[in-house]
Amino acid sequence: MTSTGPDPAPPAPRDRPTRKADALAALAAPHVDAWVASASPDGDAHLVPLSLAWVDERVVVAVEGSSATARNLTAPGRARLGVGPTRDVVVVDAVLDRAVGVDDDAALGAAYAAQADWDPRGLAGYAFLVLRPVRVQAWREENELAGRTLMREGRWLV
Amino acid sequence: MTSTGPDPAPPAPRDRPTRKADALAALAAPHVDAWVASASPDGDAHLVPLSLAWVDERVVVAVEGSSATARNLTAPGRARLGVGPTRDVVVVDAVLDRAVGVDDDAALGAAYAAQADWDPRGLAGYAFLVLRPVRVQAWREENELAGRTLMREGRWLV
Repeated sequence: MTSTGPDPAPPAPRDRPTRKADALAALAAPHVDAWVASASPDGDAHLVPLSLAWVDERVVVAVEGSSATARNLTAPGRARLGVGPTRDVVVVDAVLDRAVGVDDDAALGAAYAAQADWDPRGLAGYAFLVLRPVRVQAWREENELAGRTLMREGRWLV
Repeated sequence: MTSTGPDPAPPAPRDRPTRKADALAALAAPHVDAWVASASPDGDAHLVPLSLAWVDERVVVAVEGSSATARNLTAPGRARLGVGPTRDVVVVDAVLDRAVGVDDDAALGAAYAAQADWDPRGLAGYAFLVLRPVRVQAWREENELAGRTLMREGRWLV
Protein backbone atom coordinates (compact mmCIF):
# COMPACT_ATOMS: atom_id res chain seq x y z
CA MET A 1 0.00 0.00 0.00
CA THR A 2 1.68 3.17 -1.11
CA SER A 3 -1.30 5.47 -0.71
CA THR A 4 -0.56 8.36 1.59
CA GLY A 5 -4.12 9.52 1.97
CA PRO A 6 -7.08 7.87 3.62
CA ASP A 7 -8.41 4.70 2.07
CA PRO A 8 -10.99 5.41 -0.63
CA ALA A 9 -14.57 4.99 0.47
CA PRO A 10 -15.85 1.49 -0.27
CA PRO A 11 -18.43 1.17 -3.00
CA ALA A 12 -22.05 1.49 -1.98
CA PRO A 13 -23.57 -1.71 -0.61
CA ARG A 14 -25.24 -3.94 -3.16
CA ASP A 15 -28.95 -4.59 -2.85
CA ARG A 16 -29.91 -8.10 -1.80
CA PRO A 17 -31.06 -9.46 -5.16
CA THR A 18 -27.71 -8.36 -6.61
CA ARG A 19 -25.90 -10.12 -3.81
CA LYS A 20 -27.81 -13.32 -4.45
CA ALA A 21 -27.05 -13.17 -8.17
CA ASP A 22 -23.37 -12.48 -7.43
CA ALA A 23 -23.24 -15.30 -4.87
CA LEU A 24 -24.74 -17.81 -7.27
CA ALA A 25 -22.36 -16.68 -9.99
CA ALA A 26 -19.40 -17.11 -7.62
CA LEU A 27 -20.50 -20.64 -6.71
CA ALA A 28 -21.07 -21.64 -10.33
CA ALA A 29 -17.88 -20.13 -11.75
CA PRO A 30 -15.34 -22.40 -13.43
CA HIS A 31 -12.40 -23.48 -11.29
CA VAL A 32 -13.67 -22.00 -8.05
CA ASP A 33 -12.06 -22.95 -4.77
CA ALA A 34 -13.59 -22.72 -1.32
CA TRP A 35 -12.03 -22.69 2.10
CA VAL A 36 -13.91 -25.59 3.69
CA ALA A 37 -14.05 -25.56 7.50
CA SER A 38 -15.18 -28.55 9.52
CA ALA A 39 -14.96 -29.52 13.17
CA SER A 40 -13.75 -32.64 14.91
CA PRO A 41 -15.65 -34.05 17.88
CA ASP A 42 -12.74 -32.81 20.04
CA GLY A 43 -13.35 -29.20 19.06
CA ASP A 44 -10.46 -28.85 16.64
CA ALA A 45 -11.21 -26.85 13.53
CA HIS A 46 -10.09 -28.16 10.19
CA LEU A 47 -9.74 -25.94 7.13
CA VAL A 48 -8.63 -26.78 3.65
CA PRO A 49 -9.00 -25.22 0.21
CA LEU A 50 -10.99 -27.43 -2.16
CA SER A 51 -12.30 -27.09 -5.68
CA LEU A 52 -16.08 -27.04 -5.63
CA ALA A 53 -18.94 -27.57 -8.00
CA TRP A 54 -22.44 -26.17 -7.60
CA VAL A 55 -24.87 -28.90 -8.69
CA ASP A 56 -28.65 -28.77 -8.16
CA GLU A 57 -28.33 -26.20 -5.36
CA ARG A 58 -25.71 -28.31 -3.62
CA VAL A 59 -22.03 -27.67 -3.01
CA VAL A 60 -19.96 -30.66 -4.11
CA VAL A 61 -16.35 -31.26 -3.14
CA ALA A 62 -14.13 -34.30 -3.74
CA VAL A 63 -11.94 -35.61 -0.97
CA GLU A 64 -10.23 -38.77 0.14
CA GLY A 65 -12.64 -40.79 2.20
CA SER A 66 -10.04 -40.99 4.97
CA SER A 67 -9.44 -37.23 5.09
CA ALA A 68 -10.20 -35.12 8.14
CA THR A 69 -12.86 -33.24 6.15
CA ALA A 70 -14.67 -36.47 5.27
CA ARG A 71 -14.41 -37.79 8.81
CA ASN A 72 -15.65 -34.54 10.33
CA LEU A 73 -18.57 -34.10 7.97
CA THR A 74 -19.90 -37.61 8.29
CA ALA A 75 -20.30 -36.92 12.01
CA PRO A 76 -23.09 -34.56 13.04
CA GLY A 77 -22.28 -30.92 12.63
CA ARG A 78 -22.09 -28.24 10.01
CA ALA A 79 -19.43 -27.33 7.55
CA ARG A 80 -18.79 -23.72 6.71
CA LEU A 81 -17.39 -22.70 3.36
CA GLY A 82 -15.80 -19.43 2.40
CA VAL A 83 -15.69 -18.53 -1.30
CA GLY A 84 -13.97 -15.54 -2.80
CA PRO A 85 -11.39 -13.08 -1.58
CA THR A 86 -11.80 -11.94 2.03
CA ARG A 87 -13.32 -8.63 0.96
CA ASP A 88 -15.92 -10.15 -1.36
CA VAL A 89 -17.10 -13.27 0.37
CA VAL A 90 -19.81 -15.84 0.04
CA VAL A 91 -20.10 -17.87 3.25
CA VAL A 92 -22.15 -21.07 3.14
CA ASP A 93 -23.14 -23.13 6.18
CA ALA A 94 -23.97 -26.60 4.96
CA VAL A 95 -24.76 -30.10 6.13
CA LEU A 96 -23.84 -33.36 4.49
CA ASP A 97 -26.54 -34.60 2.16
CA ARG A 98 -24.66 -37.72 1.09
CA ALA A 99 -21.18 -39.03 0.42
CA VAL A 100 -20.77 -41.01 -2.78
CA GLY A 101 -17.79 -42.72 -4.35
CA VAL A 102 -16.41 -40.69 -7.24
CA ASP A 103 -17.39 -43.39 -9.73
CA ASP A 104 -20.79 -44.22 -8.28
CA ASP A 105 -22.90 -41.36 -9.70
CA ALA A 106 -22.12 -40.63 -13.34
CA ALA A 107 -24.15 -37.42 -13.57
CA LEU A 108 -22.60 -36.00 -10.43
CA GLY A 109 -19.10 -36.92 -11.56
CA ALA A 110 -19.63 -35.31 -14.95
CA ALA A 111 -21.02 -32.12 -13.38
CA TYR A 112 -18.10 -31.88 -10.96
CA ALA A 113 -15.46 -32.44 -13.62
CA ALA A 114 -17.12 -29.88 -15.88
CA GLN A 115 -16.86 -27.10 -13.30
CA ALA A 116 -13.73 -27.96 -11.33
CA ASP A 117 -10.26 -27.83 -12.81
CA TRP A 118 -9.50 -31.45 -12.01
CA ASP A 119 -11.28 -34.77 -12.36
CA PRO A 120 -11.19 -37.12 -9.38
CA ARG A 121 -13.06 -39.92 -11.16
CA GLY A 122 -11.05 -43.11 -11.11
CA LEU A 123 -9.06 -42.15 -8.02
CA ALA A 124 -9.25 -44.96 -5.48
CA GLY A 125 -10.60 -43.91 -2.12
CA TYR A 126 -12.01 -40.56 -3.23
CA ALA A 127 -15.57 -39.53 -2.55
CA PHE A 128 -17.84 -36.66 -3.43
CA LEU A 129 -19.34 -34.90 -0.44
CA VAL A 130 -22.67 -33.39 -1.43
CA LEU A 131 -23.37 -30.53 0.96
CA ARG A 132 -26.79 -28.96 1.36
CA PRO A 133 -26.65 -25.23 2.14
CA VAL A 134 -28.68 -24.16 5.14
CA ARG A 135 -27.42 -20.58 5.38
CA VAL A 136 -25.82 -18.36 2.76
CA GLN A 137 -24.30 -14.98 3.53
CA ALA A 138 -22.53 -12.54 1.23
CA TRP A 139 -20.72 -9.31 1.94
CA ARG A 140 -17.84 -7.19 0.77
CA GLU A 141 -17.05 -4.46 3.27
CA GLU A 142 -18.47 -3.52 6.63
CA ASN A 143 -21.24 -1.55 4.97
CA GLU A 144 -22.65 -4.84 3.66
CA LEU A 145 -22.77 -6.66 7.00
CA ALA A 146 -26.39 -5.58 7.40
CA GLY A 147 -28.55 -7.73 5.18
CA ARG A 148 -25.81 -10.29 4.56
CA THR A 149 -28.00 -13.33 5.15
CA LEU A 150 -29.50 -14.51 1.86
CA MET A 151 -30.62 -18.00 2.91
CA ARG A 152 -31.74 -19.18 6.32
CA GLU A 153 -32.78 -22.67 7.37
CA GLY A 154 -32.35 -23.81 3.80
CA ARG A 155 -34.68 -21.22 2.27
CA TRP A 156 -33.65 -18.31 0.13
CA LEU A 157 -34.84 -15.05 1.66
CA VAL A 158 -34.28 -13.15 -1.59
CA MET B 1 -10.57 -19.23 -18.64
CA THR B 2 -10.37 -18.86 -22.37
CA SER B 3 -7.34 -21.09 -22.87
CA THR B 4 -8.04 -23.91 -25.27
CA GLY B 5 -4.88 -25.88 -24.56
CA PRO B 6 -3.87 -27.77 -21.45
CA ASP B 7 -3.16 -25.73 -18.35
CA PRO B 8 0.43 -24.54 -18.19
CA ALA B 9 2.67 -26.58 -15.94
CA PRO B 10 2.80 -25.14 -12.43
CA PRO B 11 6.08 -23.56 -11.37
CA ALA B 12 8.64 -25.82 -9.76
CA PRO B 13 8.07 -26.39 -6.06
CA ARG B 14 9.84 -23.99 -3.74
CA ASP B 15 12.46 -25.32 -1.37
CA ARG B 16 11.50 -25.30 2.28
CA PRO B 17 13.55 -22.31 3.44
CA THR B 18 11.92 -20.28 0.66
CA ARG B 19 8.49 -21.45 1.78
CA LYS B 20 9.22 -20.41 5.35
CA ALA B 21 10.41 -16.98 4.24
CA ASP B 22 7.35 -16.58 2.01
CA ALA B 23 5.03 -17.73 4.81
CA LEU B 24 6.49 -15.28 7.31
CA ALA B 25 6.27 -12.49 4.74
CA ALA B 26 2.61 -13.34 4.11
CA LEU B 27 1.82 -13.24 7.83
CA ALA B 28 3.65 -9.95 8.37
CA ALA B 29 2.29 -8.16 5.31
CA PRO B 30 0.24 -5.00 5.79
CA HIS B 31 -3.52 -5.41 5.66
CA VAL B 32 -3.52 -9.20 5.54
CA ASP B 33 -6.72 -11.12 6.15
CA ALA B 34 -7.04 -14.72 7.26
CA TRP B 35 -9.92 -17.15 7.06
CA VAL B 36 -10.19 -18.15 10.73
CA ALA B 37 -11.86 -21.49 11.41
CA SER B 38 -12.95 -22.57 14.86
CA ALA B 39 -15.21 -25.29 16.20
CA SER B 40 -18.08 -25.26 18.62
CA PRO B 41 -18.47 -27.97 21.25
CA ASP B 42 -21.39 -29.27 19.14
CA GLY B 43 -19.16 -29.94 16.16
CA ASP B 44 -20.22 -26.95 14.08
CA ALA B 45 -17.46 -25.25 12.17
CA HIS B 46 -17.25 -21.49 12.23
CA LEU B 47 -15.30 -19.52 9.63
CA VAL B 48 -14.84 -15.81 9.25
CA PRO B 49 -12.36 -13.52 7.50
CA LEU B 50 -10.42 -11.39 9.96
CA SER B 51 -7.54 -8.92 9.70
CA LEU B 52 -4.51 -10.32 11.45
CA ALA B 53 -1.24 -9.09 12.87
CA TRP B 54 1.89 -11.17 13.40
CA VAL B 55 3.41 -10.10 16.71
CA ASP B 56 6.26 -11.92 18.47
CA GLU B 57 5.56 -15.16 16.56
CA ARG B 58 1.88 -14.98 17.44
CA VAL B 59 -1.15 -14.44 15.25
CA VAL B 60 -3.36 -11.69 16.66
CA VAL B 61 -6.95 -11.05 15.63
CA ALA B 62 -9.50 -8.66 17.11
CA VAL B 63 -13.07 -9.82 17.67
CA GLU B 64 -16.07 -9.04 19.78
CA GLY B 65 -15.82 -10.93 23.03
CA SER B 66 -19.29 -12.33 22.44
CA SER B 67 -18.52 -13.59 18.90
CA ALA B 68 -18.61 -17.26 17.95
CA THR B 69 -14.87 -17.15 17.26
CA ALA B 70 -14.11 -15.86 20.76
CA ARG B 71 -16.46 -18.36 22.37
CA ASN B 72 -15.06 -21.27 20.41
CA LEU B 73 -11.41 -20.43 21.01
CA THR B 74 -11.72 -19.89 24.75
CA ALA B 75 -12.90 -23.51 24.96
CA PRO B 76 -10.33 -26.25 24.40
CA GLY B 77 -9.48 -26.93 20.81
CA ARG B 78 -7.49 -25.54 17.95
CA ALA B 79 -8.15 -22.80 15.50
CA ARG B 80 -7.00 -23.13 11.93
CA LEU B 81 -6.19 -20.10 9.82
CA GLY B 82 -5.87 -19.89 6.07
CA VAL B 83 -3.90 -16.98 4.62
CA GLY B 84 -3.50 -16.17 0.97
CA PRO B 85 -5.31 -17.20 -2.17
CA THR B 86 -6.29 -20.86 -2.35
CA ARG B 87 -3.40 -21.68 -4.70
CA ASP B 88 -0.73 -20.03 -2.53
CA VAL B 89 -1.70 -20.80 1.02
CA VAL B 90 -0.26 -20.56 4.47
CA VAL B 91 -2.26 -22.70 6.91
CA VAL B 92 -1.68 -22.18 10.62
CA ASP B 93 -3.04 -24.41 13.39
CA ALA B 94 -3.00 -22.41 16.57
CA VAL B 95 -4.15 -22.45 20.17
CA LEU B 96 -5.25 -19.53 22.28
CA ASP B 97 -2.40 -18.02 24.25
CA ARG B 98 -4.52 -15.30 25.85
CA ALA B 99 -7.47 -13.03 25.23
CA VAL B 100 -6.98 -9.42 26.22
CA GLY B 101 -9.23 -6.39 26.02
CA VAL B 102 -8.28 -4.14 23.14
CA ASP B 103 -7.24 -1.36 25.52
CA ASP B 104 -5.47 -3.50 28.09
CA ASP B 105 -2.10 -4.04 26.39
CA ALA B 106 -0.75 -0.90 24.76
CA ALA B 107 2.14 -2.55 22.92
CA LEU B 108 -0.11 -5.23 21.48
CA GLY B 109 -2.73 -2.71 20.42
CA ALA B 110 -0.11 -0.54 18.71
CA ALA B 111 1.38 -3.53 16.88
CA TYR B 112 -2.04 -4.69 15.71
CA ALA B 113 -3.10 -1.26 14.49
CA ALA B 114 0.20 -0.81 12.67
CA GLN B 115 -0.26 -3.96 10.58
CA ALA B 116 -4.01 -4.26 10.20
CA ASP B 117 -6.06 -1.82 8.18
CA TRP B 118 -8.33 -0.91 11.08
CA ASP B 119 -7.90 -0.05 14.73
CA PRO B 120 -10.21 -1.73 17.22
CA ARG B 121 -8.83 0.17 20.23
CA GLY B 122 -11.60 1.98 22.05
CA LEU B 123 -14.34 -0.34 20.79
CA ALA B 124 -16.37 -1.59 23.73
CA GLY B 125 -16.51 -5.35 24.04
CA TYR B 126 -13.68 -6.10 21.61
CA ALA B 127 -10.75 -8.32 22.53
CA PHE B 128 -7.50 -9.38 20.96
CA LEU B 129 -7.10 -13.13 20.65
CA VAL B 130 -3.40 -13.99 20.76
CA LEU B 131 -2.96 -17.34 19.02
CA ARG B 132 0.16 -19.44 19.33
CA PRO B 133 0.98 -21.42 16.18
CA VAL B 134 1.55 -25.10 16.71
CA ARG B 135 1.68 -26.15 13.07
CA VAL B 136 2.41 -24.11 9.95
CA GLN B 137 2.01 -25.46 6.44
CA ALA B 138 2.53 -23.73 3.11
CA TRP B 139 1.86 -24.88 -0.42
CA ARG B 140 0.86 -23.61 -3.82
CA GLU B 141 0.00 -26.47 -6.14
CA GLU B 142 -0.12 -30.22 -5.71
CA ASN B 143 3.61 -30.48 -6.38
CA GLU B 144 4.21 -28.66 -3.08
CA LEU B 145 2.07 -30.92 -0.90
CA ALA B 146 5.17 -32.94 -0.05
CA GLY B 147 7.20 -31.00 2.47
CA ARG B 148 4.40 -28.59 3.28
CA THR B 149 4.81 -28.75 7.05
CA LEU B 150 7.18 -26.02 8.21
CA MET B 151 6.34 -26.06 11.94
CA ARG B 152 5.21 -28.99 14.06
CA GLU B 153 4.35 -29.00 17.77
CA GLY B 154 5.29 -25.36 17.94
CA ARG B 155 8.81 -25.79 16.56
CA TRP B 156 10.01 -24.62 13.18
CA LEU B 157 11.38 -27.54 11.18
CA VAL B 158 13.14 -25.21 8.74
